[in-house]
Amino acid sequence: MPAERGQGPGRGATDRGSAGRPTISEVAAEAGVGRATAARTLGGYGYVSPELRERVLAAARKLGYRTNALARSMSTGVTHTIGVIVADIGNPFFAGVMRGISDTSRARGFDTLVLSTYEALEEEVAATDVLIDKRVDGMIISSAAVDRGEVAHIRAAIDRGVPVVLVDRAVAALDLDTVVIDNRDAAREAVETLVEAGHRRIGFVWGPPAAEQPATRRGLLARTSRNLWTDGERLRGYLDALDDARIPFDPELVMVGEKSERHAAQEVARMLALPDRITAVFCTEAEAVIGALRAIRAAGLSYPRDVSIIGFDDSAWAAVMEPPLTMIEQPVHELGATAARVLLDVLEGAEPRREMHTLRSRLIVRSSVGPAPAG
Amino acid sequence: MPAERGQGPGRGATDRGSAGRPTISEVAAEAGVGRATAARTLGGYGYVSPELRERVLAAARKLGYRTNALARSMSTGVTHTIGVIVADIGNPFFAGVMRGISDTSRARGFDTLVLSTYEALEEEVAATDVLIDKRVDGMIISSAAVDRGEVAHIRAAIDRGVPVVLVDRAVAALDLDTVVIDNRDAAREAVETLVEAGHRRIGFVWGPPAAEQPATRRGLLARTSRNLWTDGERLRGYLDALDDARIPFDPELVMVGEKSERHAAQEVARMLALPDRITAVFCTEAEAVIGALRAIRAAGLSYPRDVSIIGFDDSAWAAVMEPPLTMIEQPVHELGATAARVLLDVLEGAEPRREMHTLRSRLIVRSSVGPAPAG
Repeated sequence: MPAERGQGPGRGATDRGSAGRPTISEVAAEAGVGRATAARTLGGYGYVSPELRERVLAAARKLGYRTNALARSMSTGVTHTIGVIVADIGNPFFAGVMRGISDTSRARGFDTLVLSTYEALEEEVAATDVLIDKRVDGMIISSAAVDRGEVAHIRAAIDRGVPVVLVDRAVAALDLDTVVIDNRDAAREAVETLVEAGHRRIGFVWGPPAAEQPATRRGLLARTSRNLWTDGERLRGYLDALDDARIPFDPELVMVGEKSERHAAQEVARMLALPDRITAVFCTEAEAVIGALRAIRAAGLSYPRDVSIIGFDDSAWAAVMEPPLTMIEQPVHELGATAARVLLDVLEGAEPRREMHTLRSRLIVRSSVGPAPAG
Repeated sequence: MPAERGQGPGRGATDRGSAGRPTISEVAAEAGVGRATAARTLGGYGYVSPELRERVLAAARKLGYRTNALARSMSTGVTHTIGVIVADIGNPFFAGVMRGISDTSRARGFDTLVLSTYEALEEEVAATDVLIDKRVDGMIISSAAVDRGEVAHIRAAIDRGVPVVLVDRAVAALDLDTVVIDNRDAAREAVETLVEAGHRRIGFVWGPPAAEQPATRRGLLARTSRNLWTDGERLRGYLDALDDARIPFDPELVMVGEKSERHAAQEVARMLALPDRITAVFCTEAEAVIGALRAIRAAGLSYPRDVSIIGFDDSAWAAVMEPPLTMIEQPVHELGATAARVLLDVLEGAEPRREMHTLRSRLIVRSSVGPAPAG
């Protein structure tokens, strides 16, 4: 009765009795393949075409066949599990990436274990150790590492024969397959959209987590070397758009400090109170958008009349805001699916290409950008 | 330089050199404990007080000490990992629960592996097998199982000595420690709030995933035995509030079918087009709230003037909607933390209490409820 749940594969599959575990031969019969094919698939050795493998795995699941994966992994070295380390599973962005990884991996017979580091590098190091101990075949990591001194754990995994693909964030110190979006172009396009509507005082929220505003553009860019890659790229896109429009850089329009909704609200309030106040704000995260909206309301202003706004990442709620928000949509599922595809290809024998795989984001134009109010 | 990241523990911790792995004695010295204590902690055997264990684990992480957990688990049977199976990690509710589990587990020296089933029972069965194969010490599950025929995988885990705690959803067929919120009371309070504002035509979105509306109240309740427990409880709370106010049950005001934002919008549109249309809607999930808002707008109506609305779960965006939404807030972090505490107590020797642990939700009153418009 799959319709009962409204989604998911057939549920009858789990109605197995308690009368003994099914054998490989029974799985083979159910899948309509030879016993050797079923044994190769379930044992994780030798070649089996993707179609047949999928049929065998479906039959195995249907019958409730369970290999002793631990014992199997001892002999074949393959566990058919991949590990994923994300920075914050509470961020809908990463939840979407995870879904892409999970869908792609399951279709190719791999299970996915997830650990969340909540942006703490120390947790990431521990998570890498856990996944190695759990004998995953490979890992996908959105790393908090920003420089050479912080990547020993990733190198250690690779040295132990566990391939790693990076997702969302490039790490300059690592020459690995990396799946990202076009952060710099996306930010540039968003800020250009604001410039084209006549805005010249455009806030950037959130910026580098520094203690105070760098006084110069050079100082700001220097800081980005200690930033997450995505943050640095989005800042560069903002500066690109200002440069193209010959709008001078003003450090007062860049938020620094703690990345939180509360602090974003404080910083946007500060920028709205400047003598030459901002008339638009570009937000690099959905939480920052919410902070900016709070500040706009608290100042007795409204968007897009008094202040225009564009932000990452598009969400269902952004479309039902009144007026609906113009947002940047990242291809989250495809990010995860691509990372999984690249990793699984390597696990199945392909050479790592050590490339940057860049996917396109999309600006979803709604109604939060208006003409700059007359000074 | 923790301030650079804006959060998380010290990062210098990971600056270990490549010159050989630290020994247990080095970890003991760093932690300021005896070698035997460090060995017991890192080996996972014998008694170590929580404070000392935490110090040893912190020192081990700082020095980059890594046990061979697989080998260790073979001899001691303890891996210091717990497995979590959630219905949908893309739902912010489960992301919050996960954070609670993770924070509590880490503080007690356990790592957390997560698998998401996307509400498919078949995936849940497979996930249970994966976690048993990965030799987790215990599991926390938000199960999609609704009856006796669907719990064999959970019984199998327990039979193999892997304790299980249920979270968010009770499963009547299982006598296990279960951590939930007061779903029925929460729904009743929300609907009472609408009744007190004068509403008598109150939509319920979303309801049972049946193919068509049960014609009677009895038929509706019969359906809930094939529902997720939370859905059934919330429906009962809705009916309680109607009963108390002597408002007759009208099956046309209950959404049935696929649980999706799109279908919620269709169903609310239908209820708004009835000759005796709804003047309020109670939503059991945030996605349903968004669907309802779309339908209200599409009908050229606005809230709370024409239609009042209350829903699960409170979110940052609900507070910045204009007008801000009255929502039910679940104690998501505490749900996860409690589930982890109950499981870890059992892993550390306590007897399972096989109790229902019920936490209180909270109605956050904002501005989406108004008086019922005059018919």
